[in-house]
Amino acid sequence: MKYSSIPSAQTVVYNCKANGINNIVISPGSRNAPLTIGFSEDPSFNCYSIVDERCAAFFALGIAQQSKKPVALLCSSGSALLNYYPAIAEAYYSDIPLVIITADRPPHKIDIGDGQTIRQENVFQNHIGYSANLKLDIRNTNPLGLGDTEGSQQVSIQRYNEEELLKALNIAFQDKMPVHINVPFEEPLYGVVGKPLMLTIGAVRKEQENPFVEDLDEFIKLWNTAKRKMILVGVHDPSHEVQELLDSVANDPSVIVFTETTSNLHHPNFFGSIDSIIAPIEKSKDKEELFQKLRPEILLTFGGLIVSKKIKAFLRKFTPEHHWHIDPKKANNTFFCLSHHFKVQPIQFFEVFNGGLVSQPSNYFSFWNSVKKGYQVKRQEYMAQIPFSDMLAFHHIFKNVPNGYQLQLANSSTIRYAQLFDLDPSLHVFCNRGTSGIDGSTSTAIGASIVHEDPTLFITGDLSFFYDSNALWNNHIRSDFRIIVLNNEGGGIFRILPGQEDTENFETFFETVHHMDASHLCQMYQMEYQMAENEKELDMALTSFFGKSDKPKLLEIKTPRVLNNKILLSYFDFIS
Amino acid sequence: MKYSSIPSAQTVVYNCKANGINNIVISPGSRNAPLTIGFSEDPSFNCYSIVDERCAAFFALGIAQQSKKPVALLCSSGSALLNYYPAIAEAYYSDIPLVIITADRPPHKIDIGDGQTIRQENVFQNHIGYSANLKLDIRNTNPLGLGDTEGSQQVSIQRYNEEELLKALNIAFQDKMPVHINVPFEEPLYGVVGKPLMLTIGAVRKEQENPFVEDLDEFIKLWNTAKRKMILVGVHDPSHEVQELLDSVANDPSVIVFTETTSNLHHPNFFGSIDSIIAPIEKSKDKEELFQKLRPEILLTFGGLIVSKKIKAFLRKFTPEHHWHIDPKKANNTFFCLSHHFKVQPIQFFEVFNGGLVSQPSNYFSFWNSVKKGYQVKRQEYMAQIPFSDMLAFHHIFKNVPNGYQLQLANSSTIRYAQLFDLDPSLHVFCNRGTSGIDGSTSTAIGASIVHEDPTLFITGDLSFFYDSNALWNNHIRSDFRIIVLNNEGGGIFRILPGQEDTENFETFFETVHHMDASHLCQMYQMEYQMAENEKELDMALTSFFGKSDKPKLLEIKTPRVLNNKILLSYFDFIS
Repeated sequence: MKYSSIPSAQTVVYNCKANGINNIVISPGSRNAPLTIGFSEDPSFNCYSIVDERCAAFFALGIAQQSKKPVALLCSSGSALLNYYPAIAEAYYSDIPLVIITADRPPHKIDIGDGQTIRQENVFQNHIGYSANLKLDIRNTNPLGLGDTEGSQQVSIQRYNEEELLKALNIAFQDKMPVHINVPFEEPLYGVVGKPLMLTIGAVRKEQENPFVEDLDEFIKLWNTAKRKMILVGVHDPSHEVQELLDSVANDPSVIVFTETTSNLHHPNFFGSIDSIIAPIEKSKDKEELFQKLRPEILLTFGGLIVSKKIKAFLRKFTPEHHWHIDPKKANNTFFCLSHHFKVQPIQFFEVFNGGLVSQPSNYFSFWNSVKKGYQVKRQEYMAQIPFSDMLAFHHIFKNVPNGYQLQLANSSTIRYAQLFDLDPSLHVFCNRGTSGIDGSTSTAIGASIVHEDPTLFITGDLSFFYDSNALWNNHIRSDFRIIVLNNEGGGIFRILPGQEDTENFETFFETVHHMDASHLCQMYQMEYQMAENEKELDMALTSFFGKSDKPKLLEIKTPRVLNNKILLSYFDFIS
Repeated sequence: MKYSSIPSAQTVVYNCKANGINNIVISPGSRNAPLTIGFSEDPSFNCYSIVDERCAAFFALGIAQQSKKPVALLCSSGSALLNYYPAIAEAYYSDIPLVIITADRPPHKIDIGDGQTIRQENVFQNHIGYSANLKLDIRNTNPLGLGDTEGSQQVSIQRYNEEELLKALNIAFQDKMPVHINVPFEEPLYGVVGKPLMLTIGAVRKEQENPFVEDLDEFIKLWNTAKRKMILVGVHDPSHEVQELLDSVANDPSVIVFTETTSNLHHPNFFGSIDSIIAPIEKSKDKEELFQKLRPEILLTFGGLIVSKKIKAFLRKFTPEHHWHIDPKKANNTFFCLSHHFKVQPIQFFEVFNGGLVSQPSNYFSFWNSVKKGYQVKRQEYMAQIPFSDMLAFHHIFKNVPNGYQLQLANSSTIRYAQLFDLDPSLHVFCNRGTSGIDGSTSTAIGASIVHEDPTLFITGDLSFFYDSNALWNNHIRSDFRIIVLNNEGGGIFRILPGQEDTENFETFFETVHHMDASHLCQMYQMEYQMAENEKELDMALTSFFGKSDKPKLLEIKTPRVLNNKILLSYFDFIS
């Protein structure tokens, strides 16, 4: 095996290895050669080569989202690393660990006019768990080969680099955050040795679960006496344990559970389409009274960011007396009334909490459950009568996704439409809701698909699909990977905006109308392409779409640009 | 005309207008609606709609590169703006003014779990001229409609916003730097009024040319007594005045002028292919002696960053006694021996400097000129005997570009190959050398082409072309825009690296071999596509390629992946 002759390169590679980081996404370059050699020559790493760093970073994010372990990114110096930034911000807000390793020039070559040279140290500081700025080795060689003074300087540099690196890795592992490791290298960059140096390999502290020592008596007492308790769950990984514990809390007439599509929690008594409850209230003449009826005394939340704007607006206006959030790390004060943060995992919380619960007589659940039954019937009726459109297409798609699929959803219409339907509980649903960007959904889905046992379906709109078209420049796409593009020729979501939609300026600068389709990209990247532009074609297409194939497949569904939004808005009228 | 009802939006729009910013590149979003409305409703602005913010920013950079005036960028909140960062860094190091306007959420909605919300204030701080963090208006309305306290708070907010905005615009105009203006907005975002508010419109201070007061006597004395003086010019806009002044300095046997392709300076006595001088010395057995002979006593530089690695390595080792740099703003200590910085425009400098010059007898010019004549003959011979390859393709391309074209070159093989040829003086040559990235060359070229009188030819390699493929998602591409893609199926430049090129790891992680071509993208974006894979086809293609057409055209030249680099390296052997 070959090793880079540069000590800091070996330090990085072997500390990653020792701590179990085994997925490395590498973008090409010369400055990062010592690390590229180090990672790619060691068969214990899975190295992925992705040229466009923006895609590389979202691809890594997808792997980390599924593997629950830090994934390393490696690129060259200069503007290359700036292309990582959108994915870093997403990782930061979604608690996904990325280890961003960037090669740099030596400090004295920065800002003196060398090419591919920027100010890399701390460049991601607004959205990073830790920035480790490693030091240049005295010489790219073993301290044993140096004179006394240089040798001891080199030893202290190595010590410093090891410590900084370990600090960064600890934060990635324990806090599930992106961290940045900047490594300056001087030429020659391609030197290799047959034997590694003697390096200190540090071990990151194991992720610790805080023991749950908090006394819940007061909270349980409040809970047991309240008549209206709402549990609201945002982005949350599938978990049978949490599901079971939650089922038991919810088995109480004074409790309603609002789950977002990304919560991966399902129960016939849960409310999976929050907006279908709230939108009709907004339109009702008894709006005030109904919102007061829905307003919980206690709001208990866990999971990540909330998609539904309507629930946010409602809870910010009709604030609960208590808002408790469960998360080992952080509690967003999303509704401006956060009163307590339980710093544990939901599973730990409910294991203790459930022990003290006493069911409370109340018509809170039954009233809203009958509302839910009402809109469920109406939704069926509505679907049976609407013309071909985004909404009808989603209806057909969700009916047809095979059980057990991983479902990756793009921002922003896609996830919003998905929230209106009851998805099969066997689907595992994910969406980049940390920053809710359209910039890397395809890359994330491809990354997420490669570490998942089951096949993946990625659903996206046209703007987000074309935005991240370089995602397909990837040699690791599985043949069972499926993409559905809802192409309504622009950012249809903006049509919901008031009073602008009939102007040319609206079409140009908000909706950004285009007439592209995905067929050429499929040819270019050797994907099978199917197209549907009416209900019959869609049903036909869906019968074969999920079947086995030699190549990944993309189904493009063309829907009527101007009609879609009218149908969406009328849905809320219809169920009201 | 309609105006956003939000005071800060009007402040931004009307201060841009008053100061002559008229090109606005807008990416779609909802949060930025007040500004999108403000800019797009006012016919005095040229508004361009570009969805992918990475491309939008490089497109704006191209416009600003040619128009020499600040160009505004506008996007929504969240990760959108992070996609601007690669172009911002390029602008920062290339002294190109961009006014980056980003819509933000109100401060109390940051880090509480709202969508599309990140920490935008100062997010570009490592590479920005100024970050103006505007304040949220008290209410999105006129202070006249508010109570006394709120009214006076609103007045002071408006004052603050106007001042911050002006500071930013001043730096963009005077220092030619990118600046960031972050504008928080609260809903409702779409309110419009028929009459603008009474706002203070500030005027940026006009760009000042420092009067040149420095006493040059000592410098002229040194110059007049030195036997070996080298003038080296990096990135520099075409200028007849500078060309004439430089011709006169160079008319001295003790002076040699080394010009890079991006210097846009031409004279039969100048040395336009620096590497063709230096590479043969590197290979010579009299290397030390020849480098001493080439080593200048005085090095005078102006212009931006230097492409040639060989001249940098040479001048860092064989340092001149004096290195003087001419630039009104900054002087990079590129060779670690900078001794003086003349803070003026080159034209001002030479107008004074030339007055005192006395020609100095020396064989410095004549010796190196005979070397140059030698390699020019050999280069012709070499071109006549090599097989089809990148190098031969460039030879044919440069022979065929019509006079007067703007020539946009991508990083990094393209610009390096171009440096080996003598280009026609009528061509205007540009390349993103601030950070030397491959990430936005196509977008930059398209932006630059739309403000130029003459047609533009953009030459690029396959990796940089596919990297920035979204550049073609642009409704403003002129029908006379031309792209030539040299497709050698990967990053051929990495083949120059020592000892790696025959391994599978090399092909995967350095060269990143692929088998794509540009034909599908041309179909998708409705460009005319031509392809050539040998000398005859290339010559045929070039005869019609520059002719008038209804659509922009792309010529893809397929060259042999493994052979190219051997031919390049042999060139230096051949001319030695």
